Amino acid sequence: MDIAEELRAIEQIKALKARYWRGIDTRDRALLRGVFTDDAITDFRDSTQSDDDTQLKRNPDAFVDDLFALLNGVVTVHHGHSPEIALRSETEATGIWPMEDWLWVEDEASSLPFRKLNGWGHYHDTYRKTAIGWRIASTKLVRIRVEAE
Amino acid sequence: MDIAEELRAIEQIKALKARYWRGIDTRDRALLRGVFTDDAITDFRDSTQSDDDTQLKRNPDAFVDDLFALLNGVVTVHHGHSPEIALRSETEATGIWPMEDWLWVEDEASSLPFRKLNGWGHYHDTYRKTAIGWRIASTKLVRIRVEAE
Amino acid sequence: MDIAEELRAIEQIKALKARYWRGIDTRDRALLRGVFTDDAITDFRDSTQSDDDTQLKRNPDAFVDDLFALLNGVVTVHHGHSPEIALRSETEATGIWPMEDWLWVEDEASSLPFRKLNGWGHYHDTYRKTAIGWRIASTKLVRIRVEAE
Repeated sequence: MDIAEELRAIEQIKALKARYWRGIDTRDRALLRGVFTDDAITDFRDSTQSDDDTQLKRNPDAFVDDLFALLNGVVTVHHGHSPEIALRSETEATGIWPMEDWLWVEDEASSLPFRKLNGWGHYHDTYRKTAIGWRIASTKLVRIRVEAE
Repeated sequence: MDIAEELRAIEQIKALKARYWRGIDTRDRALLRGVFTDDAITDFRDSTQSDDDTQLKRNPDAFVDDLFALLNGVVTVHHGHSPEIALRSETEATGIWPMEDWLWVEDEASSLPFRKLNGWGHYHDTYRKTAIGWRIASTKLVRIRVEAE
Repeated sequence: MDIAEELRAIEQIKALKARYWRGIDTRDRALLRGVFTDDAITDFRDSTQSDDDTQLKRNPDAFVDDLFALLNGVVTVHHGHSPEIALRSETEATGIWPMEDWLWVEDEASSLPFRKLNGWGHYHDTYRKTAIGWRIASTKLVRIRVEAE
């Protein structure tokens, strides 16, 4: 790859991650599912402090289904900040993204154990270039701080 | 356009939008006015929940004048996050920007109906390349959440 | 420099600044020290409202040592947003970065005069290309707003 092709890959990966967050926060199932490879790993064990493996999946369909069920009646905002994207090969890349998120639970019937959450941390991602473009191959969220009430 | 020219356009558009926010938050009239085309559309009807059309303008001079009058005695911060920028032609582009803003009303005489506002949403923009560089041709803010007190 | 080389420099500078913030917030001394030139100027007089010159240094080793001592027992998050990066020559560049930060003082013995701080402002940086890549040659933080309790 020449310089311009490398930079294009980085820009495409940034926009890919932007679609991930917009897919969650606007509840756009096709947009969100479309950012993942079919075997993508989603690892939210650290960020949810879960002992079991319900927060570790290698099934992006189930990830989207479970997430949208969990977020029923919940307004969310996820913001990603200055990333470090590194190409490892023509078809593989890694990324570290500082993030902040908010969850406002509006539905009294929600199973979430808080009414409002504000969190901070870093995503540690891998990306793979497929026939239809760059996709998230794995994502893991590591928290710095969570405030819930 | 070749790849490098496309990427340069995207970088110029990102810096353009950064000047827009810095122009507002540092009250720099020339900086803010300079980011718009002369016929730019500014649409804040959704974000201000206005029934009338005072929040929809095709007059960037009036937009800046009215905004700075409204924000007299108000400290503001506007932050833009990971964007999705797409070139539509050599002279046209679109952008979606997640955002967060804060308004702190310090002047008791302010007409704003709150003392503090914290908001989240997405800007949906179009950009046009003019003889003096890329400019914002239209911007529309769609809110996800507003907290005012 | 051709267009692609300019854009690569800008991308490298963005990732450099991202490492600066991650170095602080994950308390990674080598990562943080590595982003600076050996004679880098760090100017936090405005942001800390200090009359004396303890917040102005031309000594990145001392900057990192003093910062990590000050932040002992403190959880921090620093987020950078849409920047304006400008190349001034093949080896010099400037950058303006909107930012937000949080400090949560967890250790009762901390000398900091607050338990929680949330701040907003702009970094005004210069960068220099060295034999081992782009480095921060100077950084100055100018505040828009600080809320401490």
